[in-house]
Amino acid sequence: MNFKIEEAIEILERTPKVLHALLGGLSLNWIDCHEGDGTWSPKEVLAHLIEGENEDWIKRLELCIEHGVNKPFKPFDRFSHLQYVNKKTMEELLNTFSELRYNNILRLNQLITSPKTLELKGRHPDFGTVTVKELLATWVSHDLNHIVQINRTMANRYRDDVGPWIEYLGIYR
Amino acid sequence: MNFKIEEAIEILERTPKVLHALLGGLSLNWIDCHEGDGTWSPKEVLAHLIEGENEDWIKRLELCIEHGVNKPFKPFDRFSHLQYVNKKTMEELLNTFSELRYNNILRLNQLITSPKTLELKGRHPDFGTVTVKELLATWVSHDLNHIVQINRTMANRYRDDVGPWIEYLGIYR
Repeated sequence: MNFKIEEAIEILERTPKVLHALLGGLSLNWIDCHEGDGTWSPKEVLAHLIEGENEDWIKRLELCIEHGVNKPFKPFDRFSHLQYVNKKTMEELLNTFSELRYNNILRLNQLITSPKTLELKGRHPDFGTVTVKELLATWVSHDLNHIVQINRTMANRYRDDVGPWIEYLGIYR
Repeated sequence: MNFKIEEAIEILERTPKVLHALLGGLSLNWIDCHEGDGTWSPKEVLAHLIEGENEDWIKRLELCIEHGVNKPFKPFDRFSHLQYVNKKTMEELLNTFSELRYNNILRLNQLITSPKTLELKGRHPDFGTVTVKELLATWVSHDLNHIVQINRTMANRYRDDVGPWIEYLGIYR
């Protein structure tokens, strides 16, 4: 077990900056590319991260603290962001995500008042009992997971362009 | 085939900014973590990217333009960076990479004078004949590949901390 709240927050506060650096001002061919039917473009992944800020992490943390295992988390809709993503520009989404994440880290710092808070429990609709520590470790891993997905999706555009070098590039395996 | 030089440069110029945003000021537990014996930490990956700026991409591009297939590329040493990485701080490495990349993009813009330059050929020590376009597409893919590696390596620290959520996180598969 490696989780430490201070180190977790280091990643959470970097993700908006990483996505700004990677996606800000980028051509539509990169922003809207995907890996095939049913897969998400970088822009759609960002909208999914915004949904998480609005509907998932902090709401679930509050449920753990206020109700423990007595009130299960609302299932997270993994597809709701696809309804509005095309109405927003990448810059709008990047700014929205940054603002939401900034405020959610402030809220997180208010809610985690002692190491004991990390051991509080909640009820996941699929998994049953989970801990605050698992929820927060998942928040961090979910960020890193989707940064990986965005970069892998973009790289996939050049799968045929790299010629024989495909053999050396783990990202294409 | 999707390669366009303008779009390729968009990625090449973003990579130092992405790595600054992700790794600048980060705790040593994140910077020095790895996935097991023989795997690279985020800091070691960055040093490998620096070696590429010094010894690989532009030198090979110059060889293609000046000598075509008559002079093979020097094999790239994938391990030389491990000799000095511990003597440098992360901030030194980030700044070195940014400077090298900035100058290499300037040089790239000087060298690619027309779409015909992309069709020029060189000789890879393992693969034989390759094109400039394949070399440049590989430069871009190599950046994205190593951004993925760094994020995956960092996420791996929390593999056991996420509890049952491991099932939902593709990064752990």
